[in-house]
Amino acid sequence: MEGRKLRRSLVLSISISLFLLLTWLHLPSSPENFIKKPGPTHHESDVPHHPLDPLTVHEFNKVRAILATHPLFESSSTYSLNAIALEEPDKELVLKWKRGDPLLPRKASVTAMVNGKSHILLVDLNTSEVSYNELGSTSGYPILTIEETARILEVPFKNVEFNGTIAQRGINMGDVKCVPLSSGWYNMPIENKRRVIKVQCFSMKDSVNFYMKPIEGLTVLIDMDREEVLHIFDNGRGIPVAKGIDTDYRYSVQKLRGELHLFNPISMEQPKGPSFIVEDGHLVKWANWEFHLKADPRAGIIISQAKVRDPDTSEMRSVMYKGFTSELFVPYMDPTDAWYFKTYMDAGEYGFGLQAMPLDPLNDCPRNAYYMDAVFAAADATPYLRPNIICVFETYAGDIAWRHAETPFNNFKVTEVRPKVNLVVRMAASVGNYDYIVDWEFQTDGLIRSKVGLSGMLMVKGTIYDHMNQVPSEEYLYGPLLSENLIGVIHDHYIIYYLDLDIDGTDNSFTKVNIKKHETSPGESPRKSYLKAIRNVAKTEKDAQIRLSLYDPSEFHMTNPSKKTKIGNPVGYKVVPSGTAASLLDPEDPPQKRAAFTNNQIWVTPYNKSEEWAGGLFAYQSKGDDTLQVWSNRDRPIEKKDIVLWYTLGFHHIPCQEDYPIMPTVSSSFDLKPVNFFERNPILRLPPNFKHDLPLCSSHHLP
Amino acid sequence: MEGRKLRRSLVLSISISLFLLLTWLHLPSSPENFIKKPGPTHHESDVPHHPLDPLTVHEFNKVRAILATHPLFESSSTYSLNAIALEEPDKELVLKWKRGDPLLPRKASVTAMVNGKSHILLVDLNTSEVSYNELGSTSGYPILTIEETARILEVPFKNVEFNGTIAQRGINMGDVKCVPLSSGWYNMPIENKRRVIKVQCFSMKDSVNFYMKPIEGLTVLIDMDREEVLHIFDNGRGIPVAKGIDTDYRYSVQKLRGELHLFNPISMEQPKGPSFIVEDGHLVKWANWEFHLKADPRAGIIISQAKVRDPDTSEMRSVMYKGFTSELFVPYMDPTDAWYFKTYMDAGEYGFGLQAMPLDPLNDCPRNAYYMDAVFAAADATPYLRPNIICVFETYAGDIAWRHAETPFNNFKVTEVRPKVNLVVRMAASVGNYDYIVDWEFQTDGLIRSKVGLSGMLMVKGTIYDHMNQVPSEEYLYGPLLSENLIGVIHDHYIIYYLDLDIDGTDNSFTKVNIKKHETSPGESPRKSYLKAIRNVAKTEKDAQIRLSLYDPSEFHMTNPSKKTKIGNPVGYKVVPSGTAASLLDPEDPPQKRAAFTNNQIWVTPYNKSEEWAGGLFAYQSKGDDTLQVWSNRDRPIEKKDIVLWYTLGFHHIPCQEDYPIMPTVSSSFDLKPVNFFERNPILRLPPNFKHDLPLCSSHHLP
Repeated sequence: MEGRKLRRSLVLSISISLFLLLTWLHLPSSPENFIKKPGPTHHESDVPHHPLDPLTVHEFNKVRAILATHPLFESSSTYSLNAIALEEPDKELVLKWKRGDPLLPRKASVTAMVNGKSHILLVDLNTSEVSYNELGSTSGYPILTIEETARILEVPFKNVEFNGTIAQRGINMGDVKCVPLSSGWYNMPIENKRRVIKVQCFSMKDSVNFYMKPIEGLTVLIDMDREEVLHIFDNGRGIPVAKGIDTDYRYSVQKLRGELHLFNPISMEQPKGPSFIVEDGHLVKWANWEFHLKADPRAGIIISQAKVRDPDTSEMRSVMYKGFTSELFVPYMDPTDAWYFKTYMDAGEYGFGLQAMPLDPLNDCPRNAYYMDAVFAAADATPYLRPNIICVFETYAGDIAWRHAETPFNNFKVTEVRPKVNLVVRMAASVGNYDYIVDWEFQTDGLIRSKVGLSGMLMVKGTIYDHMNQVPSEEYLYGPLLSENLIGVIHDHYIIYYLDLDIDGTDNSFTKVNIKKHETSPGESPRKSYLKAIRNVAKTEKDAQIRLSLYDPSEFHMTNPSKKTKIGNPVGYKVVPSGTAASLLDPEDPPQKRAAFTNNQIWVTPYNKSEEWAGGLFAYQSKGDDTLQVWSNRDRPIEKKDIVLWYTLGFHHIPCQEDYPIMPTVSSSFDLKPVNFFERNPILRLPPNFKHDLPLCSSHHLP
Repeated sequence: MEGRKLRRSLVLSISISLFLLLTWLHLPSSPENFIKKPGPTHHESDVPHHPLDPLTVHEFNKVRAILATHPLFESSSTYSLNAIALEEPDKELVLKWKRGDPLLPRKASVTAMVNGKSHILLVDLNTSEVSYNELGSTSGYPILTIEETARILEVPFKNVEFNGTIAQRGINMGDVKCVPLSSGWYNMPIENKRRVIKVQCFSMKDSVNFYMKPIEGLTVLIDMDREEVLHIFDNGRGIPVAKGIDTDYRYSVQKLRGELHLFNPISMEQPKGPSFIVEDGHLVKWANWEFHLKADPRAGIIISQAKVRDPDTSEMRSVMYKGFTSELFVPYMDPTDAWYFKTYMDAGEYGFGLQAMPLDPLNDCPRNAYYMDAVFAAADATPYLRPNIICVFETYAGDIAWRHAETPFNNFKVTEVRPKVNLVVRMAASVGNYDYIVDWEFQTDGLIRSKVGLSGMLMVKGTIYDHMNQVPSEEYLYGPLLSENLIGVIHDHYIIYYLDLDIDGTDNSFTKVNIKKHETSPGESPRKSYLKAIRNVAKTEKDAQIRLSLYDPSEFHMTNPSKKTKIGNPVGYKVVPSGTAASLLDPEDPPQKRAAFTNNQIWVTPYNKSEEWAGGLFAYQSKGDDTLQVWSNRDRPIEKKDIVLWYTLGFHHIPCQEDYPIMPTVSSSFDLKPVNFFERNPILRLPPNFKHDLPLCSSHHLP
């Protein structure tokens, strides 16, 4: 690494240092005394303990050193390492591995852009060998790096036309704040065969909440690799920048308007401390659960090898080999120049984990939370720390795990109630304006709830209107008027989960238990109809392409056909949808093809190590040739096989004034729930709360 | 009241006393110090303060005294007062009433059964006048009284045939426990023109959980008014009573197996105490909310005059005049003799409030809960107390009200997060085997969540099979095998909510905001499609008969067309469904006709004081001639009128082994959510949590 590369590398290092500094400054105040962080805080001495542990500081540095002498980078003028993560060992090996065994060989998977072309390399950290993985011919590019995004955001400011239009609009260049927008893929000549990005700008005058002050209609198309402006779309000059009065949501500013003190302090307290431990930095053990937990730059949270204890045998039984948010899709519903392309796939384009910020203790998570850091890598493989990116905490909201009170008719008194205490694993990713709160909630009854909360800022559109009575036809606004000169453009959110359920082993089947009306025969019964449950085992992938329907309902079971309960039911888990939304876009619309994983709510595919990213490994500018839809259409056998279930959680969002200037959290979830997995209610022996278990508390004395 | 009537009255009084004793014994240990009960505990001195306050002890006694001399009861040999509740004053008067005004005239509505016939009387508590309300010609009978149910349950034991079959089955008569089952209505000669009930029995040998030990196939049909056996269905003699091993869920018994200590104690603590007050016993004021709260024998919880404070004007703005669970429908999916009729409408048949038991402090509700009692009346109008039937508490589960973290790109650091604290109002009704946990959750952002949790015991069916490999075809079991000799019969649960939303006044409109795919014209855009929101205001009731569809989605707004935000959006609230189920039964099936309110998920009717009970005022043995479907089919105008929204929450329940012997709670909910009701996010000025606000806690020292 010499000459230009070294200089490039130096520039990168400086920008990373700046970035780290910013991140580091953010370190929250120390968590409560009883929440100890088990490992060293600075991670320099971290060593992997488990085959699935993420790459350590030392390992990233080793990758950097190994690649420094690799011919691919030796001969290139520019390159970046867009994704570096542990190449997980083969599932078979991980499943056999036990604590105390020697660690499996450590490998890093590296996605590199070299002279505008994508490469995947596999770096053996034990042997220092580097091998290429064949790329095939799929379209698309890797995740943006923080460094290239930072560079791109400077490009418009060097452009005369851009400076001109900003000046013409009467906006002070010092107030202009721009954001990088992935441009999707629309088979347009100017965007083909090059990596492009669109930049849209805002005014930060008088408010940090620049999102509420768009410079409407101005979009700068940039060649990412050449770092040059390709085209400026500029057709919103008549649209004023919204005034943004009182849009600054910061406490320091809002306090001046008068705090809204609505309730006294309330806190979850655990006088004997939390009930979980985090072993070797990543293995969470709580109540009857254990699982491996890590942060991933693309997926965010990865849960691995989730196992639940059988109360009868004390055996830890496998539920899920791996679960994570595989991709997002956020299409906006406005076909005009400055908006049509806004159809984001946040995980594959920006990195869902990369966009996660350190959590605010006492507010993002309760005081009894444990925090986990992430070590990610800059574009030259230099490791950097994201502190407190995941939190883990127990929660009790006053809910009831089970109960029964007997009616006094029966001449005996019974009231038996058990409190519900769950464990939550949380990350909050701020993908630009939007904040996604991702929760994995583990329950003692064996249920896993995956929940997504949406907050942050809307992507709003400038308009000439400041009152609805000026609007000729509401239909052509592409969304409701939210404030003077601002429209909340209608959009959807989809989050697809990769759920490699392994119910008591890898060989599972997917069964649709269809609930069907059955008419009685004449004279059979005073009833005309009743419902039957019809079980259909999916033979191939197409049998498991599921669209939910309220009037054709089913349960969706993942079972182990070779493992039965004592009375002969196959053990299983079911996926239980809750509120959700389905994509209604034309299947041939380019964004819908790229995000074809939203064509169904449920899919089941045979386990395939290379099929993890539902929108394609290279989602950026992809054409939709490497999606879950493409894989599933191969219609491979899935019965009694190692299979993966995919579930998509959806939201339609028609904004309203309450979403301005920052949105109250809206959330939805789905459950993974045991169904004949246990012989009986697994928490029958749970004790109730007794008064002497609860803490004695007093007000905090102000210093 | 002399002679036979007096004797009857004495018997009633004794049974009530016994009942009260049982209820009273249940009094929970005193709530925490900081949760004071504002009123006297014994309620003898209660006086009404608000026009909607429930009848007091004094008022019930007055009703009793007034009716004692009424000719209807003078001349009858037997009678019972099946429902006595406040006749709420006209809405117009209540809306005008202000604290400090003289109380509106107090009236009691009384439903009486006299010689097998239903009557409705209106008792004026000020003038002592009694007037009849015309009954019309609708079918059905009033709610069962506790006294008549208790009497009925003794009837089979006096029957020779019944005693014979129990003996033949080798069951000790002392172990037999029977339950009263409403028989529905199937137009069968034996059930017509008389009030009938079916009794099914269980063995309580070796377990208080008799529900898991059904005496299968034995159903006793009883004439309720003559208290005599009409017929005994007895065709399950070959089916053994399940052994019920380890089905006793009581802590005292389960402790012997070894407690399952899964987590350390955890508690919600409020060092400065709760943030709400309950004024005059019924007016709850918390954060930016206030509402009137009471227990009702039929509905359970009734929320009235819910108002939320506008953060800009400090005005309390009307959201909902009245909300409650109007009816339930629980059809089992088995057409055979002992099961076909199990199609319960729990509110109208048994009384949802009457079935609510005192809540277990520390377990049914957290320690920071406030408890509210109910005063109900026995069948002779004697008032009795149900202590702690409703709880109110603040809850913090570690959730986030809103947040945003700014990406460090932007060269400024922002992380602003606000914790989410809600107020929960809870009741738990044990309708025989099933426990319904009903929550109304108020959020500071203006959202009201209505949640139902299901726990308790399944209604199970005895079978000869003790292993699935003996079952010739699973389809004919009517549900999965749960344990040796026990089937969990498939069933549904529906809970319909009466929601008299009054958004900033009574004249509202219901708007369906339909989300539709729109195809772009050729050349218009690189996009082929996008979604539009099409607003359709419902003119008449049939426009508002809504079936939800994932692929034809809509938002459902209740708006005030004459009240607009500053920028001109009509103020409104929307109903937001989450996970739910729809009834698939044949619309002409008798139970479906009776519970025709499940034919749609949403209905809107014009406000009509007499249309409150979706399954009919007299639901017991009703024919379905007085349901929401019948009213709505009149297709009355509903635009810019005082209108009522109805929402049905549904569950399909295919039981599984985890539901045995007691079910882990499963819950679902829907939201009422402001949509352009506020000018902007109403909790923008909420402060974050600070460490000095949180309590200092220590372990409780054991005595």
